[in-house]
Amino acid sequence: MNLYRIALVSIGNEVLSGDTLNTNAAWIGRRCAAIGALVAEQRTVPDERAAIIEAVSALRTRADLVVTTGGLGPTHDDVTVAALCELFGDKLVVHEPTLEYLERYAALRGREATERVRSQALVPSSAIVLPNTVGTAPGLLFRRSDGGDVLVLPGVPAEMRAIMEEHGLGWIARRIEEGGYDVFAERVLVTSGIPESDLADRLESLRTTLPPSVELAFLPAGGVVRLRLRASGRPDEVKETLEKVSEAFVSKLGEAVISTSNERLVEVLHRLCVTNGKTLAVAESCTGGMLGAEITSVPGSSAYFVGGLICYADAVKVHFGGVRPETLAIYGAVSQQTVEVLASYVRTAYSTDLSIAISGIAGPGGGTAEKPVGTVWIAVADADGVHARHYQFGTDRQTNRRRACDAAILMAIERLRST
Amino acid sequence: MNLYRIALVSIGNEVLSGDTLNTNAAWIGRRCAAIGALVAEQRTVPDERAAIIEAVSALRTRADLVVTTGGLGPTHDDVTVAALCELFGDKLVVHEPTLEYLERYAALRGREATERVRSQALVPSSAIVLPNTVGTAPGLLFRRSDGGDVLVLPGVPAEMRAIMEEHGLGWIARRIEEGGYDVFAERVLVTSGIPESDLADRLESLRTTLPPSVELAFLPAGGVVRLRLRASGRPDEVKETLEKVSEAFVSKLGEAVISTSNERLVEVLHRLCVTNGKTLAVAESCTGGMLGAEITSVPGSSAYFVGGLICYADAVKVHFGGVRPETLAIYGAVSQQTVEVLASYVRTAYSTDLSIAISGIAGPGGGTAEKPVGTVWIAVADADGVHARHYQFGTDRQTNRRRACDAAILMAIERLRST
Repeated sequence: MNLYRIALVSIGNEVLSGDTLNTNAAWIGRRCAAIGALVAEQRTVPDERAAIIEAVSALRTRADLVVTTGGLGPTHDDVTVAALCELFGDKLVVHEPTLEYLERYAALRGREATERVRSQALVPSSAIVLPNTVGTAPGLLFRRSDGGDVLVLPGVPAEMRAIMEEHGLGWIARRIEEGGYDVFAERVLVTSGIPESDLADRLESLRTTLPPSVELAFLPAGGVVRLRLRASGRPDEVKETLEKVSEAFVSKLGEAVISTSNERLVEVLHRLCVTNGKTLAVAESCTGGMLGAEITSVPGSSAYFVGGLICYADAVKVHFGGVRPETLAIYGAVSQQTVEVLASYVRTAYSTDLSIAISGIAGPGGGTAEKPVGTVWIAVADADGVHARHYQFGTDRQTNRRRACDAAILMAIERLRST
Repeated sequence: MNLYRIALVSIGNEVLSGDTLNTNAAWIGRRCAAIGALVAEQRTVPDERAAIIEAVSALRTRADLVVTTGGLGPTHDDVTVAALCELFGDKLVVHEPTLEYLERYAALRGREATERVRSQALVPSSAIVLPNTVGTAPGLLFRRSDGGDVLVLPGVPAEMRAIMEEHGLGWIARRIEEGGYDVFAERVLVTSGIPESDLADRLESLRTTLPPSVELAFLPAGGVVRLRLRASGRPDEVKETLEKVSEAFVSKLGEAVISTSNERLVEVLHRLCVTNGKTLAVAESCTGGMLGAEITSVPGSSAYFVGGLICYADAVKVHFGGVRPETLAIYGAVSQQTVEVLASYVRTAYSTDLSIAISGIAGPGGGTAEKPVGTVWIAVADADGVHARHYQFGTDRQTNRRRACDAAILMAIERLRST
């Protein structure tokens, strides 16, 4: 299989120390997969010339393209350009259009284009400059005949993405086409309700009959298991192969498949609500707005989501969520009774078809013997009534909140699919 | 400098393809830094035996410890154990306590411990087994005299974290102490209001006089610039060195330093509210709950945060946020007038000292010539009145929402520091 292979080098002590989460690598992985290019490996190295040179050199011997991110800023710890200059025996020259851009950029913000800012217009003479329209340091592309090409991008995610979208991805797609490379395509089925190992057992016979150009992977996360089917081959064949294989999986799994297009759970909810003309409101206690944030992360969510209540304090549950003080006194804020009232009340007050209420003990404090940290109650109200469920998650606050959101969305999806 | 060096190997096609964000590497980086161990490099490799063996072998020659995550599950694409067995010429044996645990684990969930599940009790004979108390596959520790040790962890974040917290981190700390390694310590100052390159200019003279054991890095993100000072040396000396250096930076920068302990913005808000006895409510339109979710991500936020309104739909702004339909008709939902009313109304209705209201056009749709995508209005109300500000962010929906939250929190911090 002659795929176009990409290797990533993430540059920055702040990535190794974990102060910065490496969202750039994931974004590049997804966007390259979408055009059939394989991110074959990835390395993160410190802001050190020697480490950068070593990683880029090693990866150029086995990748068609090495993409670096980070280390292009104006401060002393940004050494990527110097490292590549050294690697390729190149020298720095002033790139006039970039210099003009940097001066305009500073002027627009009422600042002076200091020497430090202007230094970002110094580029290796053999690099093609890819303008940065949202920040200062431009991207650089080295076309090489002695090994893989090198694409150098800033580490600031918005800037990296803009340069990739405006230049990098299109250029890679043309390389794949002109170079006659094979491509791969993926289809991800989202399944709900079957544990990973049961799913593996149920699919074993189907898996062993897959054509050799197709790979299956199980990706359990967020209360569902995703099945990723990846087919590689000639551009005109892969889609068809994938279509056939994925049909076989879907018919084997039936109702357990809640999405055939790798949707996030919240996108499934979005689709089902919009398709069925249902509107939704929320009442969030322990998640504090996380469910609403997740729902509204999808463009167009105003088509079904009206908003709701963040009822973090008990007083807010009483004054704006319809919960009686006696209910809180007798059953507690984290109880079936409380989430049922919240869901019913919000559904009526906000005049929606559906509502979701969440109340739980996210931790680390607030747990008791009877209701330990990780106890969560969720209710979904619809025209058929109120449906509440109890969950017992773990001890980590953010994980509990995340899992509560996932469980709430899954409950709403179940209701929408059952009616 | 004789630091204890750790190299990470993240295993999984889903990480390379970007389907899974590599939060494990960041978490391990942060937790190891906290005990003075350096994560010196990181690689992500596919679920392939040869790739795993190559990465672990290469990194063992220059790290004291190689930590792998992923590829320990029960399905065919989990090959980490097989790879390490091959690398060390080891053979698999049944680990009885793990087998018993897996059977109990399945029984508790009303499932059968299938062959596939039980296979996770097969471990290399030379490995020390680190029990997994939150999932199925245990961690494995290979003590080696022919190069770095190897610690093998599951890829599921909650499981990886539990094993690290219960076994891995303590073990690493003991290795550092017993081995007489140097350590490093970090101090991160959070600065607000000065662009990165101006900050670099202002600090240049101080930076050039730093002792050679101290490094400075600039980490701009989220509307602030963090300055990371890292001192390496003997365990009894590094803290003192760091203290002196950081005092010099703080006195140079004065009011621009909003935190001397690497707090997240929302932690600064939390601290200022709690210290000053102020309570807070929110009204969120385009952020849809993201601000509330961020605020409540900090344990103990119920000490000052009561909740608020997700007023995504205009009807919710009118019925629950005090906005008059005429205000929406004349000025629009994204306007100074609307956020000012929302902030004032919510502050009164929820009886808090402070309130924050956000309304904006997150995109990709909804922009106009007058109010393009990225237009955001934010208001903060306190005892002194309502303070509104206009922001013009970019074109990416999630980035705009994220930046709106950061800007809102910074505005509230400013108000709290000015009174």
